[in-house]
Amino acid sequence: MGMVGGGRGAFIGQVHRMAANLDGKIELVAGAFSSTPEKSKLSGQDFFIDPDRAYGTYEEMAKAEAAREDGVDFVSIVVQNHLHFAVAKCFLEAGINVICDKPLALDIDQAKELQKLVHDSGLIFALTHNYTGYPMVKEAKRMVADGELGRILKIVAEYPQGYAVGDVEGEGSGAISNWRADPKIAGASNCMGDIGTHAHNLVHYITGLEIDELAAELTAFIPGRELDDDGNCLIRYEGGVKGILYASQISNGDENNLNIRVYGTKASLEWHQEEPNDLIVKFANAPRQTYRRGNDYLGAAAQANSRTPFAHPEGFIEAFANVYLAAAAAISDKIDCKPAPEGGYDYPTVDDGVHGMAFIKACVDSSKNNAAWTKLDL
Amino acid sequence: MGMVGGGRGAFIGQVHRMAANLDGKIELVAGAFSSTPEKSKLSGQDFFIDPDRAYGTYEEMAKAEAAREDGVDFVSIVVQNHLHFAVAKCFLEAGINVICDKPLALDIDQAKELQKLVHDSGLIFALTHNYTGYPMVKEAKRMVADGELGRILKIVAEYPQGYAVGDVEGEGSGAISNWRADPKIAGASNCMGDIGTHAHNLVHYITGLEIDELAAELTAFIPGRELDDDGNCLIRYEGGVKGILYASQISNGDENNLNIRVYGTKASLEWHQEEPNDLIVKFANAPRQTYRRGNDYLGAAAQANSRTPFAHPEGFIEAFANVYLAAAAAISDKIDCKPAPEGGYDYPTVDDGVHGMAFIKACVDSSKNNAAWTKLDL
Amino acid sequence: MGMVGGGRGAFIGQVHRMAANLDGKIELVAGAFSSTPEKSKLSGQDFFIDPDRAYGTYEEMAKAEAAREDGVDFVSIVVQNHLHFAVAKCFLEAGINVICDKPLALDIDQAKELQKLVHDSGLIFALTHNYTGYPMVKEAKRMVADGELGRILKIVAEYPQGYAVGDVEGEGSGAISNWRADPKIAGASNCMGDIGTHAHNLVHYITGLEIDELAAELTAFIPGRELDDDGNCLIRYEGGVKGILYASQISNGDENNLNIRVYGTKASLEWHQEEPNDLIVKFANAPRQTYRRGNDYLGAAAQANSRTPFAHPEGFIEAFANVYLAAAAAISDKIDCKPAPEGGYDYPTVDDGVHGMAFIKACVDSSKNNAAWTKLDL
Amino acid sequence: MGMVGGGRGAFIGQVHRMAANLDGKIELVAGAFSSTPEKSKLSGQDFFIDPDRAYGTYEEMAKAEAAREDGVDFVSIVVQNHLHFAVAKCFLEAGINVICDKPLALDIDQAKELQKLVHDSGLIFALTHNYTGYPMVKEAKRMVADGELGRILKIVAEYPQGYAVGDVEGEGSGAISNWRADPKIAGASNCMGDIGTHAHNLVHYITGLEIDELAAELTAFIPGRELDDDGNCLIRYEGGVKGILYASQISNGDENNLNIRVYGTKASLEWHQEEPNDLIVKFANAPRQTYRRGNDYLGAAAQANSRTPFAHPEGFIEAFANVYLAAAAAISDKIDCKPAPEGGYDYPTVDDGVHGMAFIKACVDSSKNNAAWTKLDL
Repeated sequence: MGMVGGGRGAFIGQVHRMAANLDGKIELVAGAFSSTPEKSKLSGQDFFIDPDRAYGTYEEMAKAEAAREDGVDFVSIVVQNHLHFAVAKCFLEAGINVICDKPLALDIDQAKELQKLVHDSGLIFALTHNYTGYPMVKEAKRMVADGELGRILKIVAEYPQGYAVGDVEGEGSGAISNWRADPKIAGASNCMGDIGTHAHNLVHYITGLEIDELAAELTAFIPGRELDDDGNCLIRYEGGVKGILYASQISNGDENNLNIRVYGTKASLEWHQEEPNDLIVKFANAPRQTYRRGNDYLGAAAQANSRTPFAHPEGFIEAFANVYLAAAAAISDKIDCKPAPEGGYDYPTVDDGVHGMAFIKACVDSSKNNAAWTKLDL
Repeated sequence: MGMVGGGRGAFIGQVHRMAANLDGKIELVAGAFSSTPEKSKLSGQDFFIDPDRAYGTYEEMAKAEAAREDGVDFVSIVVQNHLHFAVAKCFLEAGINVICDKPLALDIDQAKELQKLVHDSGLIFALTHNYTGYPMVKEAKRMVADGELGRILKIVAEYPQGYAVGDVEGEGSGAISNWRADPKIAGASNCMGDIGTHAHNLVHYITGLEIDELAAELTAFIPGRELDDDGNCLIRYEGGVKGILYASQISNGDENNLNIRVYGTKASLEWHQEEPNDLIVKFANAPRQTYRRGNDYLGAAAQANSRTPFAHPEGFIEAFANVYLAAAAAISDKIDCKPAPEGGYDYPTVDDGVHGMAFIKACVDSSKNNAAWTKLDL
Repeated sequence: MGMVGGGRGAFIGQVHRMAANLDGKIELVAGAFSSTPEKSKLSGQDFFIDPDRAYGTYEEMAKAEAAREDGVDFVSIVVQNHLHFAVAKCFLEAGINVICDKPLALDIDQAKELQKLVHDSGLIFALTHNYTGYPMVKEAKRMVADGELGRILKIVAEYPQGYAVGDVEGEGSGAISNWRADPKIAGASNCMGDIGTHAHNLVHYITGLEIDELAAELTAFIPGRELDDDGNCLIRYEGGVKGILYASQISNGDENNLNIRVYGTKASLEWHQEEPNDLIVKFANAPRQTYRRGNDYLGAAAQANSRTPFAHPEGFIEAFANVYLAAAAAISDKIDCKPAPEGGYDYPTVDDGVHGMAFIKACVDSSKNNAAWTKLDL
Repeated sequence: MGMVGGGRGAFIGQVHRMAANLDGKIELVAGAFSSTPEKSKLSGQDFFIDPDRAYGTYEEMAKAEAAREDGVDFVSIVVQNHLHFAVAKCFLEAGINVICDKPLALDIDQAKELQKLVHDSGLIFALTHNYTGYPMVKEAKRMVADGELGRILKIVAEYPQGYAVGDVEGEGSGAISNWRADPKIAGASNCMGDIGTHAHNLVHYITGLEIDELAAELTAFIPGRELDDDGNCLIRYEGGVKGILYASQISNGDENNLNIRVYGTKASLEWHQEEPNDLIVKFANAPRQTYRRGNDYLGAAAQANSRTPFAHPEGFIEAFANVYLAAAAAISDKIDCKPAPEGGYDYPTVDDGVHGMAFIKACVDSSKNNAAWTKLDL
């Protein structure tokens, strides 16, 4: 694989590399790691890359790799939000498969253009909504699909973090990177865009339900900030399902507290990202159950996405790696002209990305309109 | 004390009696336990009451007890919602102090009439918002009052239960008592009225914050029901504080899952009714802390409202008994013409009851108006 | 009922009174609350006792109450350990039923003498091993009895507390009452006698298994103390079952951390006193289950010993009250000449007390003998 | 690196490879993956190894790699227990550094011979006691070393698993591999050797305390088995510290439940492998604290051994990878002739391996002698 962005010191680039490395099936061989060519070269040395394939710009890289017989099978895009579109477009047009960090683009129009490009080209495009890579999230999806919860009635998704709260009484230039506060770089929303979309994607992945309309209130608690650091939504899903979804970066002391609860007529489930190896299932009038990763009683997807036996905990990197493995399988099959397996591949697609951008837009529009009910532009 | 309602088999009456009994300071000596005089007499026998003081009607009881030199110091009212007003009024007018089950009345007008009656009479009137009786809830209130959380930014209160979910696909005549589905008996809301008000009261007790306006969506998932069994609110508290509050009776597998999280600029706290002896406190950039009931490091109120040492768990009945003890102290001091202690008494009052009725009305009105922002009628 | 000991400020006496009060079926009418007659009278006033029945000595009380037509149905004994024997003997000889705080006596000889007295007299004698009063402990016992765990293989019981650790580096005169450090008052063991016996009793109550032999190491970490503040045992139960049991008062930060795990061939269970409403059950190759108090799926005993619905937490006092209710039922039936119910009564007996004294003696003897394997003197 | 053992389908070999891959700093370039040369070649293909470096035997590999200028910097040994000695010896004698799976050898004599060989050669030898790789275990070690717990009084270490319980009533040929039941291959103990040593090592790593003597009872619950599947020990550590340590493979429903509690005069700590990102710390008379991985308030080692921010959970593989990174740092510095960093390297050594073998021997000897107190042969 190749990589754009993610040079020395960039956190998310390092996560992508660890995810790719973990299973020993993907090798980083090329990259444009920085917008500064010298830095890109130095990062290439860190990652044991052939100096000829540590490129100064992503355009150069796309062109050169497309031309090589042993060019990269796919590129990982880990640049800032506002560049996702241009970089992805460049590689797709060069005929190179893409794994892209979320969000898909800066706005819904860019997102739909990429969507069209992917569908027309037939290339693989994966978006790293990494929380769907957790085995117990896959088990949750299976339970819903198999009807074990009955008809879904209500969904509560929450994603509070507290890392930016210090800026509320401070100068507002601290924990949240400046670029995340700039709509030109981060897009129309900070908090909902950065983490609210993960919660939204998680609901969609597990239940498959579409949002009819939502009422959102976004708040910038940090003085001087244009973009939100907190957001609360009431949601009406299709079929009369009711929901709450919220995200926050000023929820003091919460760390990465992504949770989901899905309530059905037969049973309910809850999953907490901070204890990702457990899935709590509550059947009416029966003892509460905890399904635990690594056990034989779990469905095929949960088992296939585990590397270690029960109670040898897996975490964030393994979940991320599962997204990579699924995308890599699709890419490898495509290269080998193999048909997709029954049931298809299990990675977040460009369509999920368009959903996410529509969700962000609806939140922002609703909030500007005093939390009026707003439909998604899909 | 005396009691109106709560005869054989009535759950909440039994809870009130256990709460009154626990500390050996309150004795049940009179009652009108049932609207059927014979049943009232039989219940009187169960409770070792002098047969002369097991009355056939509450009117008779109020009159007779007011006339006795050794008449009851107060009456506990544990009848159905729609009778709270008439019974409370009757005893207040007879000059007898009242401890009344919640909600205060059937609607806001009745509530305000009672409020006036209480204030004019100078009698003690306590409303059993029992969850405020938990020691660690009192500790939470103390922490907020002492500024340990800094400025409050956000509050999430939730109260999901699942006991009625069986009726969603059933015939709708099951778990929720019929009277709770009847607006003439239960009032304008079932779920928000029965349990949502507990969550609302808990927020107010701990933070003291008033609601500016709210946007609510109430749902009757059970077919054929007029009143809600689920409700979700966005809340704007005074001072720019944002909130979510929801309650549900169809959240499969949840039992009595009342929770509150209060986020401030310096710290946040969370309390879970199902593990009431713990209070989780999260300071920014410090280890997560669990304050535990019964320890010397807690504030005076948390200590004074505990009966057993740490980790000898206390529960629902002890919290309920704390409401009784606080109201009984006020009543006893009044009888003995003692002044109130510094800081006053710590029990929910008729004013809390009016707040609750205004909250219910705002929820119902907002929901009928497509979740429009609605102010409280206070 | 009457009470011996438990005057103003005595913790365990207050617990016994709350346990007796809770259900409104037992009334405290007489007592010898203190060895100082004046204090006994004052305590009698606190408890609203007829002054004639607030006695100066327990001997006087036994004689007077036995002579009254309306004499007490039973006496609660809540004096210091070394007096249990004499007081219990006095009341039994006066023909009065007894509820006695544990331990039964000062040594095994006294214990056996009381045992004989109880058996010969036919009187009711209950020992307040209160942890067996928890509903979920009763459910655990039922599961074992019904074979749901299969054959028992291993048992781990632990009871660490930390309240005395400050004395380890201090002067040794602090947290543990002086009388508990004095073999003449407390008996041959402090820590094992006070709390280790609760763990031992809990194992016996749930599994019914007898100890073949044990190897114990008792330690006095507090300088200058003759009696243990920590003890660890390996245990061989009948039938090849292996066990660990330990108790401690110097386990810093542990509060009242009584736990039991029972491992069988089909399933295992664990129960934690600090979260007493849950019983964790683990079947091989199945999701982990949590049985929760107050649910219909529980056995009869767990249900009958609950007062509130699920997730309205019950605690220590309710469990204690269950011991009182069971003993009171036996006493009441005896007075009314009713036969015992099928399955008998469910309260700890004098025989449990003898078991406890034998367990203590074996621990002490083994420890003095370098943890040699030691049989129980039963 | 090279690898001996760990071909297709071997679990622990795969774990070692993932641990080595994760950080992109170690590359697998050679191996003797199976005792069957064809299988070794096929496994080599799976791992993208140059066919010339997929060897038929480990002897051949040691010789060839030692002779190559670009020979492996170290070898990972993941063969069955009885071969650890011979393979390790072969590579050490060829001058190649070693990372070896535990246990170190088949018995204490072999262990001491390897120890001598390592010390004489000056080569790096790391033993994968992987649980010491967890960041919060390193934080625990730091707290003890910095005196935050005060003087240690008591240690409880437990490692129950239940995966073999099905064989207790079955035919005894199931969950535990046959080779683990064979003393010639597994050594003198199965359960204590396989997992009890992890608990022992964890205690030693965190506290640094040496065992004076222990009393152990090992049991083979599975019929027909010569070696233990359960073991319980009382331990006397140096300085009067008391301990309990147990391990089990028949504790139904427990998965990989390695836990440790260390009690000191100032504070105590507990760590649970199944929730490895948390470290619970209990100070006397203060709220209970949970230290969480990824936070700035942690010590240097805990921070340096984390890859992701707080509440992006890390697990088993990351901990394992930390052992690899520490050993690789030592190897790399040695190759580059760099001095060791201040404080040295943080990986389990051959000396830890000797300790483990001495612990196993003492357990087995004590158990054969009716749990007599037995000293370690060090």
